[in-house]
Amino acid sequence: MSSPIEEVCAEVLKRVTPTASERKQVLSLAKRLVEKVREEAKERGVETEVRVEGSVAKNTWLRDCPEIDVFMRVPTAMPREAFGTVCLEIAKRATEGYRQIERFAEHPYLEAIVEDVYVNVVPCYRVKRGEWRSATDRTPFHTDYVKPLLDERKSGEVRLLKRFMKGVGVYGAEIKVGGFSGYLCELLVLNYGSFTEVLEAAADWKERTIIDYEGHYERKDDAKKLFEEPFVMVDPVDKRRNVAAAVRKERLDEFIATSRAFLKAPDVKFFYPPQIEALEPAELVNRINARGSAIVFISFEACPAVPDVLWGQLYKSQRALRKLIQKHDFTVLRDTVWSNEKNLNTFIFEVENRFLPNMKRHLGPPLRKKRECENFLRKHVGADSTVSGPRVEEGRWVVDVQRGYTDVVKLLKEKLEDSGESVGLAEFVSKAVADSLEVIVNGEALKLYSAYPDFAKFLTEYLTGKPRWLT
Amino acid sequence: MSSPIEEVCAEVLKRVTPTASERKQVLSLAKRLVEKVREEAKERGVETEVRVEGSVAKNTWLRDCPEIDVFMRVPTAMPREAFGTVCLEIAKRATEGYRQIERFAEHPYLEAIVEDVYVNVVPCYRVKRGEWRSATDRTPFHTDYVKPLLDERKSGEVRLLKRFMKGVGVYGAEIKVGGFSGYLCELLVLNYGSFTEVLEAAADWKERTIIDYEGHYERKDDAKKLFEEPFVMVDPVDKRRNVAAAVRKERLDEFIATSRAFLKAPDVKFFYPPQIEALEPAELVNRINARGSAIVFISFEACPAVPDVLWGQLYKSQRALRKLIQKHDFTVLRDTVWSNEKNLNTFIFEVENRFLPNMKRHLGPPLRKKRECENFLRKHVGADSTVSGPRVEEGRWVVDVQRGYTDVVKLLKEKLEDSGESVGLAEFVSKAVADSLEVIVNGEALKLYSAYPDFAKFLTEYLTGKPRWLT
Repeated sequence: MSSPIEEVCAEVLKRVTPTASERKQVLSLAKRLVEKVREEAKERGVETEVRVEGSVAKNTWLRDCPEIDVFMRVPTAMPREAFGTVCLEIAKRATEGYRQIERFAEHPYLEAIVEDVYVNVVPCYRVKRGEWRSATDRTPFHTDYVKPLLDERKSGEVRLLKRFMKGVGVYGAEIKVGGFSGYLCELLVLNYGSFTEVLEAAADWKERTIIDYEGHYERKDDAKKLFEEPFVMVDPVDKRRNVAAAVRKERLDEFIATSRAFLKAPDVKFFYPPQIEALEPAELVNRINARGSAIVFISFEACPAVPDVLWGQLYKSQRALRKLIQKHDFTVLRDTVWSNEKNLNTFIFEVENRFLPNMKRHLGPPLRKKRECENFLRKHVGADSTVSGPRVEEGRWVVDVQRGYTDVVKLLKEKLEDSGESVGLAEFVSKAVADSLEVIVNGEALKLYSAYPDFAKFLTEYLTGKPRWLT
Repeated sequence: MSSPIEEVCAEVLKRVTPTASERKQVLSLAKRLVEKVREEAKERGVETEVRVEGSVAKNTWLRDCPEIDVFMRVPTAMPREAFGTVCLEIAKRATEGYRQIERFAEHPYLEAIVEDVYVNVVPCYRVKRGEWRSATDRTPFHTDYVKPLLDERKSGEVRLLKRFMKGVGVYGAEIKVGGFSGYLCELLVLNYGSFTEVLEAAADWKERTIIDYEGHYERKDDAKKLFEEPFVMVDPVDKRRNVAAAVRKERLDEFIATSRAFLKAPDVKFFYPPQIEALEPAELVNRINARGSAIVFISFEACPAVPDVLWGQLYKSQRALRKLIQKHDFTVLRDTVWSNEKNLNTFIFEVENRFLPNMKRHLGPPLRKKRECENFLRKHVGADSTVSGPRVEEGRWVVDVQRGYTDVVKLLKEKLEDSGESVGLAEFVSKAVADSLEVIVNGEALKLYSAYPDFAKFLTEYLTGKPRWLT
């Protein structure tokens, strides 16, 4: 008799493990791509070592979404600019005839869709361990480190963990997610032994968990001092790097909460959450009105940036907007941001009330500060901005002054109309906002809701406001 | 050439000092009353020492409002009940034919208006210093202490200080005011030397000023430990009593602020503030609407209690109502209470918004408290009260729940309809509220405003919200 967890894992494992023929197909495609890149490089006289890296090399890819990473390791003598010229040209020629997208993380690379499989052709420097020149130089070392440590069983455990993290929304080191990378999943399984053991450990993770699998540090405290992130996995191939540096506190917390929930009531739904059914428009309006709050949508059109840059700027701008709104005394209940990464971006700020009173209590100096009190009185007695007061309350002067903005919509429109750079919006966002800003409230969002199905799902999930597995 | 302060003081002194003939008249009336009380006591066989106390005895009364205190010192053998029977009877007979009001502070006494002069006939025990039996036993000792120390100049300084305190609203030890008593004014002048010197000192009073004029305590710290009040004047005739015990922090602060303002720009208006002109009704409504807040009036009719008891209960009830309103998340900007001490009492609570959203953020336990998290989820997932969530935010579970009250008026009506004892209203207030509660908002107050001129002035001053001298 197997336990409920074992049963769920067995079922999921079947779904995530590629069959023998699927494997053969992916590996054969990978091999052909490597050869193609080698040829093209040779033709151009570029000295390079071409290898498959990532999940395909390590046998940890998920059956339904293989992604082949082909790395070109070039000599350090090659200038950095060549990544975006010669190397990109080689990648393009090697995948000629297929759909290609130029990507840019820390440096340029090519994404192509070859025989329905996502392929990345990525340049990096061929360096000695520790002498890193570019962000991707470590990747081949990661492959070489992990590969011999993973047998077929452990590969399965990694697949389970990846699929679980995808299902609950904490997978992926890209800025948008701020979650766990594939390499991090592999190291977690190596460290704890299995998928279930990772979750059991995570359920008890405390503030600032530090894992040092290779024992690079004699004392944990040394590592604690070195790294600032909420979760630390010391990179076995580079003791100064935190493999989990991208993991944001929210994702970490969600993973902890989800681990507990799964262990308590194991279910396939964690791995494969039910699709969100967007609410009927009428029901949406009902749900919004029933809250009695004001949900403000700040929308703008295209923002010309690659996803990591876009999301970095969206998050930065979201923080700036939150600050702006709070500075003007509106109580923010919740806020989030949505983007289809193409032609629509929307910040959502839910505030307690759209309107505030005209009058605002302004605290002056405590009575014992005589000089400050005199200045305060000179400034406020009879001033145009004074509604009532000043008077002494609880040991200090206070005055009721005219409030700058009583309508959060007006505040946002006025502050953002000429780009909003002054309120701290990030560069690209600021420009896009200047061109196509729209600020709408509550039911007015129906327009966007009907036009963008993905936004409708997003907003439905926002209103529900809980993880999909929590039922 | 005299200074501006001296000029103002000279002018006020003229107005507050009784003329020779006025003095003669008051003193002669006082003498006759003493004799009358003596006679009546004798007739009843009550052994008593009858004396004039208070401002008339000490030559510190204000010209326009003399008040004669006649004290009957009775033997300690007499039971306390006799104050309200035999003693009151004597007082009544002694002032027969004049308007009489039975008063009750700590014990019963008689107020009468004799030849247009207010007269108090007050019983107390004739005790040795320190062996106090009733609250008024110290009074003759105060008279005996102060009288020889005050010459005509110092009496004038006391009169200035009293008039100043009346003018700025900090005079009087009764509960309603919570200010400075006449005796306290006298001691302040003795301690600092003159009216101006009292104000100069007050302008620099720090937290917890302690004055020990007779030097009862070797170290100030001993007195500091003994007394808890914000301002302490050790009673020269009783080292364990604080003459300023009745002075509330607000009045103390106001006196400090006013002293500074007067010294900076001396003016007769501090002593004789301009009358308040109630706003025209239309203007009142404009002013209220311009604030954009919600001013809630909680009114009820007669409350059968003497002023000190009434105000004690009103203030206690005000605090309870403030707590109630804040507990339900309404932001109180300011609150106050008005009473004509006859047939109308009104609490005023100004809140930021009359309405709150239906939804309220409810913070759950931090993630690290595993057990509490489980309980929290069990309670809130899918509950009727849950609007959205639960979800993890900033390291803890949160849920948006249905709010109990979204309308502050409804909250107050419902909580007070059956007397409001449960919310902590004081006894008499609670009963009166049960009989005649009315809760109205903003412009609806016009009804009361038109019916009660004193309320109209009070509300006008509330809206102005600053001391009358501050222009």
